[in-house]
Amino acid sequence: MKTHPLNPLDISWTQVESRDTPMHVAGLMPFTVPDGASPDFLRDLVADLRAAREFMPPWNYCLRGPGLMHPRPVWVEQESVDLEYHVRHSALPRPGGERELGQLVARLHSQPLDLTRPPWEFHLIEGLEGGRFAIYLKMHHSLIDGISGVRLLTKCMAEDPGKSLTLPPFWSPSLEKRARKERPAPTPLTLDGVLQTVMSAVGSQVRSAPQLVKAFTSMVTPGESDPALQLPFDAPKSVMNGRVRGQRRVATQLFALDRLKSVARDCDCTLNDVVLAICGGGLRRFLLEEGLLPDKPLTAGIPVSVRPADDEGTGTQVTFIIGTLGTDIEDPRERIDAVASSTRAAKAHFRKLPSEAITQYTMLLMAPSILGMLTPIAGRTRPMFNVTVSNVPGPTRPLYFRGARMEASYPISLISHGIGLNITCQSYADVLAFAFVGCRDTLPHLQNVAVYTADALAELEASLAKPRAPRPARKKSPAKKARSRKATGTKAGKAGAQRPASRKPPARPRKARPAAKAKRRGK
Amino acid sequence: MKTHPLNPLDISWTQVESRDTPMHVAGLMPFTVPDGASPDFLRDLVADLRAAREFMPPWNYCLRGPGLMHPRPVWVEQESVDLEYHVRHSALPRPGGERELGQLVARLHSQPLDLTRPPWEFHLIEGLEGGRFAIYLKMHHSLIDGISGVRLLTKCMAEDPGKSLTLPPFWSPSLEKRARKERPAPTPLTLDGVLQTVMSAVGSQVRSAPQLVKAFTSMVTPGESDPALQLPFDAPKSVMNGRVRGQRRVATQLFALDRLKSVARDCDCTLNDVVLAICGGGLRRFLLEEGLLPDKPLTAGIPVSVRPADDEGTGTQVTFIIGTLGTDIEDPRERIDAVASSTRAAKAHFRKLPSEAITQYTMLLMAPSILGMLTPIAGRTRPMFNVTVSNVPGPTRPLYFRGARMEASYPISLISHGIGLNITCQSYADVLAFAFVGCRDTLPHLQNVAVYTADALAELEASLAKPRAPRPARKKSPAKKARSRKATGTKAGKAGAQRPASRKPPARPRKARPAAKAKRRGK
Repeated sequence: MKTHPLNPLDISWTQVESRDTPMHVAGLMPFTVPDGASPDFLRDLVADLRAAREFMPPWNYCLRGPGLMHPRPVWVEQESVDLEYHVRHSALPRPGGERELGQLVARLHSQPLDLTRPPWEFHLIEGLEGGRFAIYLKMHHSLIDGISGVRLLTKCMAEDPGKSLTLPPFWSPSLEKRARKERPAPTPLTLDGVLQTVMSAVGSQVRSAPQLVKAFTSMVTPGESDPALQLPFDAPKSVMNGRVRGQRRVATQLFALDRLKSVARDCDCTLNDVVLAICGGGLRRFLLEEGLLPDKPLTAGIPVSVRPADDEGTGTQVTFIIGTLGTDIEDPRERIDAVASSTRAAKAHFRKLPSEAITQYTMLLMAPSILGMLTPIAGRTRPMFNVTVSNVPGPTRPLYFRGARMEASYPISLISHGIGLNITCQSYADVLAFAFVGCRDTLPHLQNVAVYTADALAELEASLAKPRAPRPARKKSPAKKARSRKATGTKAGKAGAQRPASRKPPARPRKARPAAKAKRRGK
Repeated sequence: MKTHPLNPLDISWTQVESRDTPMHVAGLMPFTVPDGASPDFLRDLVADLRAAREFMPPWNYCLRGPGLMHPRPVWVEQESVDLEYHVRHSALPRPGGERELGQLVARLHSQPLDLTRPPWEFHLIEGLEGGRFAIYLKMHHSLIDGISGVRLLTKCMAEDPGKSLTLPPFWSPSLEKRARKERPAPTPLTLDGVLQTVMSAVGSQVRSAPQLVKAFTSMVTPGESDPALQLPFDAPKSVMNGRVRGQRRVATQLFALDRLKSVARDCDCTLNDVVLAICGGGLRRFLLEEGLLPDKPLTAGIPVSVRPADDEGTGTQVTFIIGTLGTDIEDPRERIDAVASSTRAAKAHFRKLPSEAITQYTMLLMAPSILGMLTPIAGRTRPMFNVTVSNVPGPTRPLYFRGARMEASYPISLISHGIGLNITCQSYADVLAFAFVGCRDTLPHLQNVAVYTADALAELEASLAKPRAPRPARKKSPAKKARSRKATGTKAGKAGAQRPASRKPPARPRKARPAAKAKRRGK
């Protein structure tokens, strides 16, 4: 049997695994059943998927060691996989709406994987409203990151419904020959994508989680005076940043990409800024209702790619910036401006650094989350940022699986002590699918964050449809702007003295809004 | 908040809990939906069950300690219980048959309970064939034994369908006032019922699992010469008696009580003997097919109650006997005779002993299974018996829950290292419901054991319908008989020399069978 050693980062995921912090990631993909499908469509599908007798990596990888046989953890390729165990046919109770799907997925996502078997589970869920079904694929983070997992699946789908009918099961080796030619996958823009980059940069000196912790700890010892190492934001304590327990909540939200792009154009910012701004808007309302909104703005850890100052080619480097979520700002337009300024400032700062400094800086910024995952101090100290928000590009054209059209792909990530909320979104065809994952006990109304994020987008669109007071000059220094933001934050907004409250319907003519919206939709 | 210390036995269950041996028990109860029930019947039911805001023990018990706050483990009564977490609405995929139900229940039974919360889960499963539904109630063994759990539920049901409509949720304190007057519950005839008795007999000297292990170990040191302490059977090694892993299989089987009682009458034995004999028949065929049938007969550990020799009143004592399952015998009639002889001999032996000796003897017989649960040597030594078979009396009249008739109550127990198969059955109204629980990896075709157990009953009935060679005199000493059985066991049967093979249809007139069966059914 072939064995493959785990890389140090993947070893970490197995070491951090615990009842409270299971280290698996998942993708949730709803499908529209093809017209005229037999009532046994799903049953036949399950039977067919279970019929495979040959397996290709990583589906047949089993974790072994450390122990006598394998002093270091390895993946052992198994000859056979118990598909009756790994391929699971589930169903939703009536009426099979978002609520029922959310509850089932939250339960499935709370259950740790059996690490004595290939660490993945493939659930085919029937009973979604309108005769639809969903795939929920769960994989241990040491085996694969969530993005690559979804990529694995979409690789076995086709843009042509007809062609999709004859594809072999995902784990079948015959698939490899069929795989569409693709550019080598870029490092995924997720927290662990960044980690991966950093780990390969520090290279052989760090070969295990304890060494990693040591390296990071030495970098965050107080007393350093290099201003480049100063932290751009000082995150407030929040309900999301304590210890987490083992049960999860999962909420989802789906947006038309066009809507978000249109807002980005109107606000002269990136799509990612729009994502951050509406997440900030959703979190603000959520925390206000719970009476838990900190005075200082929540910050987000955001994986981005930048071009280092010493790079003369087209190379970019994956890193990690910390941006404001503008939760201290009531006005949606002001909020997105604050978000865009902070991400612009952070990226500009990175662009001035040579490649090596970027790596060091990244390690420093990530230290708390690394410590958060790997050590018991996590969730007991002040957080360096509050929420992870990742935006991952997905397939750009509609994909079909056995004739069924994939509707979206929700990337359900993991949380850990100190980072009790993860927001990841993935684009696909003309939609952007958000998955919110939180600790069941600290975020009992997580569903509202998803609902309010959609409301925040609507509010932002509405505010864009209104004429606006003269915009601040774009040339204003971002750093200055961030400071001036603080001076006119929540409290002023609440008092209603310096800025009109925008959560109430505007007093201006309402007709302007639908018209403007329709115009944007038509774009 | 009120606290209640755990008794030593219950502490043991929490100490033994592991990923491979989760210590929970469950009841599975299918129901027939009342005529004219709304399509929202189950949804409304879930909403209603979740609406409770007050809770009575044990539903609000939460395990705490040992730690600084509670040096010894205690139950802490919680004011509120997160019913959205504990009351779960699930569904079966189409067609919702035994197969789909079995797969879901096996998965649910493989998942450990979250011991940071009240350790129970109540699943309402919709989508059973014919518009039926099922309750699957899982509780940690430290909180309650499975039998008492089902008793807790049935207490909240009514013999009158109309009256059952207005009963409050199971966990509601208002239920206590309504509870039907019942005799104090007898010690349940299960392995842990026996354990409980033994533990209270040894009393205060043994207050923890390690002490218990010590006490047992000292009793099984070799070299003892008291013939009363000799072990009646020496179990063969079998596939069921190794280490177990964390995943479970569950199979069920339902019999009309009349059929079993009629066989017991015809064979002049107890109902429990019939249970053992058909389990033995099922296991024999199963192990033959797998090529794993030991030459020596498998033995069963059977909880029974006996009257001690020094008891002058009506008192009985719960103990534990080991009987043959007759898996070495091909002929069903011969098998049940062997089973009945061995249980008669074991009980007769106990009846000669004074109460104290029974306790000591029980401890000795149970030592291996205790060790099996509490120490790492389990599953690595020769087993003292192979399978636990418990037969538990349940409600004698049909019960209704919100107008829905309970069809049966399957007691799904636990397995542990060294005892990788548990068979428990429970009577209810006119049926006897069997649940077989095994380790997924060592018993991949557990479902067959259930199927073959039903076949074994049919074979036994068929053999009873035939005229028979002169029966051995009942007066023959049971011990002698057991010995003579060995001489004419499997091998002879296989060779076909001394006894005609009875697995093939008999050469005698077939018409005799249906007639005889019909007659028995009419009884």
